[in-house]
Amino acid sequence: MSASRVLHGIGVDIGGTKIAAGLVTEDGRILRQETDPTPASGIAAAVASLVTRLRGAEPVGGVGIGAAGFVDGDRSTVNFAPNIAWRDEPLGADVAALLDVPVVVENDANAAAWGEYRFGAGEDSDDMLFVTVGTGIGGGIVHHGNLFRGGFGAAAEIGHLRVVPGGRLCGCGQLGCLEQYASGRALVRDARERAEAGDPAAKPLVDLAGSVEAITGPMVTDLAQQGDPLSRDVLHDAGRWLGEGIASLASVLDPAVIAVGGGVAAAGDLLLDPIRAAFEEHLSARAYRRVADLRLAAFGNEAGIIGAADLGRIETVEGS
Amino acid sequence: MSASRVLHGIGVDIGGTKIAAGLVTEDGRILRQETDPTPASGIAAAVASLVTRLRGAEPVGGVGIGAAGFVDGDRSTVNFAPNIAWRDEPLGADVAALLDVPVVVENDANAAAWGEYRFGAGEDSDDMLFVTVGTGIGGGIVHHGNLFRGGFGAAAEIGHLRVVPGGRLCGCGQLGCLEQYASGRALVRDARERAEAGDPAAKPLVDLAGSVEAITGPMVTDLAQQGDPLSRDVLHDAGRWLGEGIASLASVLDPAVIAVGGGVAAAGDLLLDPIRAAFEEHLSARAYRRVADLRLAAFGNEAGIIGAADLGRIETVEGS
Amino acid sequence: MSASRVLHGIGVDIGGTKIAAGLVTEDGRILRQETDPTPASGIAAAVASLVTRLRGAEPVGGVGIGAAGFVDGDRSTVNFAPNIAWRDEPLGADVAALLDVPVVVENDANAAAWGEYRFGAGEDSDDMLFVTVGTGIGGGIVHHGNLFRGGFGAAAEIGHLRVVPGGRLCGCGQLGCLEQYASGRALVRDARERAEAGDPAAKPLVDLAGSVEAITGPMVTDLAQQGDPLSRDVLHDAGRWLGEGIASLASVLDPAVIAVGGGVAAAGDLLLDPIRAAFEEHLSARAYRRVADLRLAAFGNEAGIIGAADLGRIETVEGS
Amino acid sequence: MSASRVLHGIGVDIGGTKIAAGLVTEDGRILRQETDPTPASGIAAAVASLVTRLRGAEPVGGVGIGAAGFVDGDRSTVNFAPNIAWRDEPLGADVAALLDVPVVVENDANAAAWGEYRFGAGEDSDDMLFVTVGTGIGGGIVHHGNLFRGGFGAAAEIGHLRVVPGGRLCGCGQLGCLEQYASGRALVRDARERAEAGDPAAKPLVDLAGSVEAITGPMVTDLAQQGDPLSRDVLHDAGRWLGEGIASLASVLDPAVIAVGGGVAAAGDLLLDPIRAAFEEHLSARAYRRVADLRLAAFGNEAGIIGAADLGRIETVEGS
Repeated sequence: MSASRVLHGIGVDIGGTKIAAGLVTEDGRILRQETDPTPASGIAAAVASLVTRLRGAEPVGGVGIGAAGFVDGDRSTVNFAPNIAWRDEPLGADVAALLDVPVVVENDANAAAWGEYRFGAGEDSDDMLFVTVGTGIGGGIVHHGNLFRGGFGAAAEIGHLRVVPGGRLCGCGQLGCLEQYASGRALVRDARERAEAGDPAAKPLVDLAGSVEAITGPMVTDLAQQGDPLSRDVLHDAGRWLGEGIASLASVLDPAVIAVGGGVAAAGDLLLDPIRAAFEEHLSARAYRRVADLRLAAFGNEAGIIGAADLGRIETVEGS
Repeated sequence: MSASRVLHGIGVDIGGTKIAAGLVTEDGRILRQETDPTPASGIAAAVASLVTRLRGAEPVGGVGIGAAGFVDGDRSTVNFAPNIAWRDEPLGADVAALLDVPVVVENDANAAAWGEYRFGAGEDSDDMLFVTVGTGIGGGIVHHGNLFRGGFGAAAEIGHLRVVPGGRLCGCGQLGCLEQYASGRALVRDARERAEAGDPAAKPLVDLAGSVEAITGPMVTDLAQQGDPLSRDVLHDAGRWLGEGIASLASVLDPAVIAVGGGVAAAGDLLLDPIRAAFEEHLSARAYRRVADLRLAAFGNEAGIIGAADLGRIETVEGS
Repeated sequence: MSASRVLHGIGVDIGGTKIAAGLVTEDGRILRQETDPTPASGIAAAVASLVTRLRGAEPVGGVGIGAAGFVDGDRSTVNFAPNIAWRDEPLGADVAALLDVPVVVENDANAAAWGEYRFGAGEDSDDMLFVTVGTGIGGGIVHHGNLFRGGFGAAAEIGHLRVVPGGRLCGCGQLGCLEQYASGRALVRDARERAEAGDPAAKPLVDLAGSVEAITGPMVTDLAQQGDPLSRDVLHDAGRWLGEGIASLASVLDPAVIAVGGGVAAAGDLLLDPIRAAFEEHLSARAYRRVADLRLAAFGNEAGIIGAADLGRIETVEGS
Repeated sequence: MSASRVLHGIGVDIGGTKIAAGLVTEDGRILRQETDPTPASGIAAAVASLVTRLRGAEPVGGVGIGAAGFVDGDRSTVNFAPNIAWRDEPLGADVAALLDVPVVVENDANAAAWGEYRFGAGEDSDDMLFVTVGTGIGGGIVHHGNLFRGGFGAAAEIGHLRVVPGGRLCGCGQLGCLEQYASGRALVRDARERAEAGDPAAKPLVDLAGSVEAITGPMVTDLAQQGDPLSRDVLHDAGRWLGEGIASLASVLDPAVIAVGGGVAAAGDLLLDPIRAAFEEHLSARAYRRVADLRLAAFGNEAGIIGAADLGRIETVEGS
């Protein structure tokens, strides 16, 4: 492999229902994209098949794979995944064995953070906190241009920052995690709870969904953008919690840029405005510090593919 | 300056009432130490005088200064200090102008963290969270062998992690900061409040102190070590809060080692045991992750001098 | 009916699985007791049958029925019951139609409070707060010798005092209710959560129960009395929450006596000691007020029958 | 004294800076009113002097005195007052000794609650919770037409309901009392904190007051009524906390009517709207219960005089 030629990378994003992959240039553009359903078993083979289709005859610099869960410090093994029955799964090694390119595995939020840092919302800074608000809440930290992985590869799980002692039970076994107050799942739960309590303001949402149980996160963000008061209200509450949590994190991480992405960030300013107001109100020693620039992420759900591809490429170059 | 010779460093710790400095070997031993009172003005000159006395005729590799407050990314300017009337004070440049050695300024808790990482409790790991429990609560983060300073130099202010929404008012202007529940100041306040409320268990402390107002943190830790129930109780409460706060931080930072130092850590296991119990109980997804090793720091109040000296030395070597 | 003759009363306690009834003297002694399973429908007939069997040929002064839920101000209609599918059920009228005695319906915790007030733990005072800690948490308030029923009959639902804003979700639809932190259900949940998290201290409980899912409240209180650390721990935590909640209530209700009953109170001082410590620590303006006497209830699960019988009798005497 | 003649009563309201008294008809109208400054000592004589002036030659049925603090069950002795150096002060007996009429002493918020119950916002109900939001927060409870005084005369101190565990320090020695989040003092503190934090929205308030320290509660409510965003914001926050606290109390007290009075209630719907929204949102088992009617109090600061006068009158009639 010659250093004189810059190669494309391939980024893969393994979700609970589908695997998305893209061929990505060295400046972060997706050239081609493919998607397959997530199989019940044989995920490494499915990933290898997607990669093979995508690259065709073209040489690629490396493959990066983003997956939810704790990824080991070896950047190959998934120690634990919340949605897939993996325990210490040698995903990277398995995929590499099926291909002739280097493979790097990264936590999916970290991969997305890296994509935003390299080519998107964090491009102008070396110190970024990336917050992704989807079904759950994830995060990624870039410090002085490096991804912050922690001692065991499980850093930046900001959805499990405790914001309420003795608070709502979280799937992680703890009480009061941020994810229980500000994720897409929390939005939907709040909207449903208000509908079930007979709040008349829930009528538009229930009418749109057909039933209380059928309310989804995108319905909430869509209606909010059309001005629906209850939808705006639950988004506003989520935004407040996020802003307060991010303010608390800023004392620890002191980022220069904070980028908010994920599916719920499709709500735009309806989410970002309350985040910003709460963030500024709750920042420790606000008058005496430089304040991070808070902004929306640039790439939506493609950040993961872009970031994973770049991590795959870089690893190769560094290793070459 | 020749790279063929390893030079000693000088570490300086500027406190509210005194400035301590030490001549430190490249393997972290303090050879000589000097202390002067902190002057009302002219701190740079006082530091230079201490450094001059300490080094005598010996060449030193560099000077590191630890100071409470926000230290700029230039590692020379103190943007804000809580105890000294500094705003954007060019401390490092001022000291360097009076001496002929390189000078690096660092937040005091960061400097102590670095000392523990290089030669003490974190020596066996590259990923450490250092927690210092003194009058207030500070912290330092080492990630993959580098000090985590944040985008603006103000990272690791873990005393201002919010642990209670709507909680106790903190000096930083926010409510519910960890520092209000678990610092030396919090210990003393809790002990005094119980004495003022007429709790008979407070008698030994009040007798020792002479009056409620005269109770101090070291009195609480001393009596606790002698078995005094109220003193153990307030230490235990502080430890619980610390353990819960550290568990929350572990989701974000995923350290491999957590070292607890500062004056209150003189209480040893009376503080560390409740920290550990709460930490383990409140760790997110505990069953699915590798758990950081929690331990007492090694150097007590000298960690700051040792760490600052090393930072001063290293900067020079790197810069040379 | 002649006022010159004091008649016995019959007290009925309708539970989710069984209906217990007793023939009770005017000084609160149970002469005979009968129990039937709670039928899926026809509860009024089941109650009438029990009453008929119990009184035999003997004239009784009245029947009192205790039932979980909101009992209307008419003291006959159950507006809502948590365990039985009742909505505005005319229970008292239905039972009276099948018998020739006056019938009074009362919330079950209120009935138990009345029993304790008249003949048990509150006998020496006219102002009592009764706290019952069973599967859930209920309460009863006696003020100046009268039962405090509230404007709509739904007072004293102290299990739904909010103790944690944004706290654990309660079956009532709200977050942070006391019942989620200190009831028998909370005890069991805490013990199971610790067992599931792999806490080795949970071994004795799991061994006794056979499996994590099989752990019950009585197992926790039994093991606690045998000295099991984890069982004592979860009881202690429940007691702390109860004490803090009761301290908060004392500012509102200023009772002279606080009696703690219900199944979990079988743990005795293992529950009462932490309640008392937390109660005293958290009492507003403690140094300036008279402090309620906190004690265990006297009658265990029979308080409801004794109290209901007395309410049935009194109503008759008053009405005659 | 003849029962055939209905006599007026005299109501006295002892505040920290002035004593207000009024001659009040049996249907709650104030005929004449007088005010004197509160003397440093000799308050009983000052009260007697005011009463003597007010009644002139006219016979009165009794005197009622409202005072802040804990009033004993004898309704004569003030056990503790927050603003006056009283400890077990026999106020009622002292005043009665200087006059030839019966004297009753009552907690000031209880007296105001009674006034509202008899002639004002609670006239149509026998079960009322009265909430007074002034510098602090007080309350009064009427149950089935009787004032709820508690076992020791200190009931209805609803400002000391704990709403945040580990929350803001209260003057009563506890943490997290409602009074710290929703009183006039809390409003002012919040406005000042935002001004000190450099919030530009605080400019109108600071301009009106002249300085941050000069901001007062009435300035906040006045500006709020003129549309000032920050003033509306802090009122809204106070209202939310009040509504959540009242919802929690409703589970305990189940009132039919809730009346909100006191100086801050001059803000009208700007306070009542957020109270109502939060109250309804946070009510336990809302769908299954009858919900109290929430409304503004009728009499403003005169409620205390009107209620005290009536209590003085009634006591006499009952005692005659």
